[in-house]
Amino acid sequence: MKKVGIREVAQEAEVSTATVSRVLNNRGYISQETRNKVQSAMSKLEYYPNDLARALYKKRTYTVGLIFPSNVHPFQAELIQDIEYLLSQQGYKVLLCNSLNNPQKEIAYLTMLRKNQVDGIIVGTHNKHIGDYNGSNLPIVAIDRDLGKNTTTVACDNYAGGELAVQLLINRGCKQILDIRGDSSIKLPANDRTVAYQNLMKKYGLKTYILEVPFVLPAEEKKALIETYLHDNPEIDGIFAGDDLLASIAIFYLEAHHKKVPTDVKVIGFDGAKQTLLYNPRLTTIRQPIDQIAETATTKLINKINGKKEKDQLKLPVSLVLGHTV
Amino acid sequence: MKKVGIREVAQEAEVSTATVSRVLNNRGYISQETRNKVQSAMSKLEYYPNDLARALYKKRTYTVGLIFPSNVHPFQAELIQDIEYLLSQQGYKVLLCNSLNNPQKEIAYLTMLRKNQVDGIIVGTHNKHIGDYNGSNLPIVAIDRDLGKNTTTVACDNYAGGELAVQLLINRGCKQILDIRGDSSIKLPANDRTVAYQNLMKKYGLKTYILEVPFVLPAEEKKALIETYLHDNPEIDGIFAGDDLLASIAIFYLEAHHKKVPTDVKVIGFDGAKQTLLYNPRLTTIRQPIDQIAETATTKLINKINGKKEKDQLKLPVSLVLGHTV
Repeated sequence: MKKVGIREVAQEAEVSTATVSRVLNNRGYISQETRNKVQSAMSKLEYYPNDLARALYKKRTYTVGLIFPSNVHPFQAELIQDIEYLLSQQGYKVLLCNSLNNPQKEIAYLTMLRKNQVDGIIVGTHNKHIGDYNGSNLPIVAIDRDLGKNTTTVACDNYAGGELAVQLLINRGCKQILDIRGDSSIKLPANDRTVAYQNLMKKYGLKTYILEVPFVLPAEEKKALIETYLHDNPEIDGIFAGDDLLASIAIFYLEAHHKKVPTDVKVIGFDGAKQTLLYNPRLTTIRQPIDQIAETATTKLINKINGKKEKDQLKLPVSLVLGHTV
Repeated sequence: MKKVGIREVAQEAEVSTATVSRVLNNRGYISQETRNKVQSAMSKLEYYPNDLARALYKKRTYTVGLIFPSNVHPFQAELIQDIEYLLSQQGYKVLLCNSLNNPQKEIAYLTMLRKNQVDGIIVGTHNKHIGDYNGSNLPIVAIDRDLGKNTTTVACDNYAGGELAVQLLINRGCKQILDIRGDSSIKLPANDRTVAYQNLMKKYGLKTYILEVPFVLPAEEKKALIETYLHDNPEIDGIFAGDDLLASIAIFYLEAHHKKVPTDVKVIGFDGAKQTLLYNPRLTTIRQPIDQIAETATTKLINKINGKKEKDQLKLPVSLVLGHTV
C-alpha cells in the first residue's frame, strides 16, 4: 500500500510542499483559504504527519514496552489496562509483550523493544535467570519483581497482606492452615506473604502446611497439584491461596468433594481484580491496590525517562474484601 | 538518557563507523577479530540497531494497532493475547489501544496509529457512529463488528450459536426463555443470535422475553438491569445470556434469591474464554473459537498488508461447553 506524503498533499492542494510544511508546523503566515485547501487535501488523501520521523529525530519515541506473562490473568490484565490508560493520558503508546512464561520469548521482546527505541519498559514477569535487565541503561520499572540495582520495584505490602489473611483464618477458628505459595526459588516480593504466615503459625503454635505452585505452570498442572495436596491432607480447614485462581480451584475441588466452604474449610485468595469479583462475588480475598500500583509504576517510569533517579522499593497498602468463603 | 549510536560503537571498538556498518549489515570482508571487537563493543554499550530508522526507510513498520474496548474482558483478553502471539511469530509488534468504550478515545487512537505508520489495524470495539474506519486506505480487519466496505469482518457463527443455546434450553423443558442481548441499534454480527432465538420461539409457539444490555455499560449498570428484569419477571425459567459475565450475574442473583440453577432456572452463557471456565467450571456456555478467530483475523490482516484483496465476512463454528447450569 502506498503511503501518502506531503508531496502528494501539496499536489492535491495546488500549493508548494513548503506551504504544507508551514501549515503542519503552524509556522509563518498562511491565509485561511490556503490553510483550508491544505487541510482538506490532507483529509481527502488521509495524510497523517509521520510521528516516526519525529521520534527518530528527537530520539524520543513516547513508546513504552510492557512485558507481562499474560494479558489474560485478571490481576495483570487490570494492571495492563490501567497502565495503558495512564500512559495514553501522558501521550505515550504501549507495545504489548506477553512473555507467556517463556524466557526465550521474554529476551526476544527485550531486544525488540530496544531496537525500536522505546523510552522505557514496565516488566512483571516471573521467569528465572533473565539477567538482561541488569545494569541496563534503559529506564525500567518492575512490578512484583526484584530485578536488582537500577530497577524500581513496585509491589503491594505483601507481608501485611499475608498477615491480614492468615490472622482472619485464625480468628475464624482454623487450626490446619495451608499456604499455597509461588516458586520459593525466585526472589519475589510476594515471598513476604509466606514469612507472615510462618510468623503467625509460630506465634499461635500451629503446624505449617506449605504447597508451592509456581506461577508459570499451566492451569491444569496447578489444579492437579492443589487437588492432590487437598486429597492427601484432608485435615486442612483453612487455605490462604497465592491468587484468586488458586483459591477458586481449591473451592471448586472442595465443593465437588462434599466439603462446604466456609463451614468445613475457609478459603481466602489474593489480588481481588475487579473482573474476578464480578464473576465470583462470593470470594473473600486480599485486594491489591491495582490502580495505585499502575499509577506509581507509570509515574516512576516517566520520572526515570525524564532523567530523575528512582531506586525505591515501593510497597502499597492492601485491603480485605470480605466475601462468603471465610 | 543518551542513546548509543554506531559512532560510539566505532569509538569503543576502535574501528571506523563504516566497519561497524559492514558488521551490522553483514556486507564486505571483515576479519573475525574485528567482528568480535565490534560485537563486544555493541554489547558493552548496549547498542541495538535502530529498527525505527529501518521502518521509516522501508515504509513498513511491522506494527499493528489493536483497538479493543478492554484487555480485561475475558473474551477480548484471550483474543488479544492470541493475536499478539500470532503477530509476534510473524515479526509484528502490537500497539495496545483500550478504547474503554469511549468514542473520543477510539478516534484519538485511530489518528495516533496512523501517525505512527502502523501497517494495519485489528478492531473489536462496539461504539456507534465512528465513521473514521470507512473508506480508509489502511488495511483493517474487524472482529465481531461490521465496519462496512473494504473491511474484513471475522466473527463466530452467531446464528448457529443462538440456535444451539436456545434449542438446549427448550430440550431441557424451559418455557419462559429470556434472551439477554446487546444494543439492537448497533449493526453487529451478534444480532444474529437474537434472530435465531426469535425463530425458535416462533417455531415452538413460545412467548419472547428480550432484555437489551448494551455492551458498553459499566458492570454495575448491567447488574441492575438484569436484577430488575428478573425481579419483575419471576416466571423466567431459562436464560440465554449475551456473554458469560451476564450469565454469571444472573446466576448469582437467582441463587441469592433462593432459586436453584439449574433446577428452577437454566442459564447458558456465550464466549467460553479459558479464563472464565477456569474460575467458573460450572458454567454451561457457547464457546467461540477464539483461537480460530485470532488466527483468521491475523492471516487476513497480513494478507491485506501484503496487498491481497480480502473482503469476506467470515463466520467460524461455535461449540457447546456443557457445564452444570442447564
